[in-house]
Amino acid sequence: MAKNGSETDHTAARRSPAGAAVLREDKTTAIRAAVFEELAAVGFARMSIEGIARRAGVGKTAVYRRWRSKLQLVLDVVSAVATAGLPTPDTGSLRGDVRMLLEVAARALRHPMASQIIPDLLAEAARSPELAEALKTALHDSQEGVAAAVVAKAVERGELPQDADARPALDLMAGPLYWRLLVVRDELPAGYLDALAGSVVAALGAE
Amino acid sequence: MAKNGSETDHTAARRSPAGAAVLREDKTTAIRAAVFEELAAVGFARMSIEGIARRAGVGKTAVYRRWRSKLQLVLDVVSAVATAGLPTPDTGSLRGDVRMLLEVAARALRHPMASQIIPDLLAEAARSPELAEALKTALHDSQEGVAAAVVAKAVERGELPQDADARPALDLMAGPLYWRLLVVRDELPAGYLDALAGSVVAALGAE
Repeated sequence: MAKNGSETDHTAARRSPAGAAVLREDKTTAIRAAVFEELAAVGFARMSIEGIARRAGVGKTAVYRRWRSKLQLVLDVVSAVATAGLPTPDTGSLRGDVRMLLEVAARALRHPMASQIIPDLLAEAARSPELAEALKTALHDSQEGVAAAVVAKAVERGELPQDADARPALDLMAGPLYWRLLVVRDELPAGYLDALAGSVVAALGAE
Repeated sequence: MAKNGSETDHTAARRSPAGAAVLREDKTTAIRAAVFEELAAVGFARMSIEGIARRAGVGKTAVYRRWRSKLQLVLDVVSAVATAGLPTPDTGSLRGDVRMLLEVAARALRHPMASQIIPDLLAEAARSPELAEALKTALHDSQEGVAAAVVAKAVERGELPQDADARPALDLMAGPLYWRLLVVRDELPAGYLDALAGSVVAALGAE
């Protein structure tokens, strides 16, 4: 921990002799946490860098040193969560892998913060092509990689034909969950994830 | 058409001798249209009865005579569209019926107004349990009826087993489309609806 409150962590800077000042990790963490809290509290449109800095207990400059705009900041934070939340499962069967992905995704979408922040960002995206494009990349592409890995492993195991297409798999998994949890905003009935896993496997053409 | 600009259409009132003043249909139509335009222009949160009345060219009272609040007005208008947009198809096969529902739903979701208004209302719903509940009823229940009718006809034709469950059918149809068009905000690749119809039919357990 730096002894003074200045931005650069001199301990870390010494470990990184290339010369670039190293940004203090604890401030970065505080800013990231503040973004989520601000998003949930006031929404993307009303959120300001100033508000985030205040909540994080840092100066505005500390935010601008890391991200050049509110949009960049939000996208970076959301991408990190979207990717971190979806480990590639390896249960030994397509149905098991799909079931696990659904479980993880359902938990993420049910989280009070996600269920408030995601609809909010999508409403903004409907008016901002830049945000829409960035969200598409952040949310979809990272998740498509996981779906592709699950399908590839099923092909290896002989559960799916060689030419199985991973792209519809993601829509079939993410779509119904998103619809039920964040559009209809309903509870998942008992056995829902099991039934959905079975439907997805059948839809993909596995036996 | 009434000769003066007053609310009651006396011609219509004479046809309805029960005594209740009849609300002028042209004003109702103008107000409904204004709601969509206001929703698209400023969003639910910033929309006001005053703004709607101004856009419709009527007095605020004309709005309040028909709907007791902004929420009721929006829900009524959205419900009408949600129901009107989904005729029950009858193509003679489950796959044909599903394909037609997907086509109609995709057209509705791609409409610039829907693609802006729906995410906006859902963002509000994340903060307003009353709106969430009302949207759930308006959007989901009307569409669930159509899905149930399609499944029931497939059971009659022997394409699905007697105990086929209509509830997952709606999620499997609406979910992937909604995900692709209003979350990822992507174009539908060529052949997408055909492939999705096949997946839905397979997922429902038909051959």
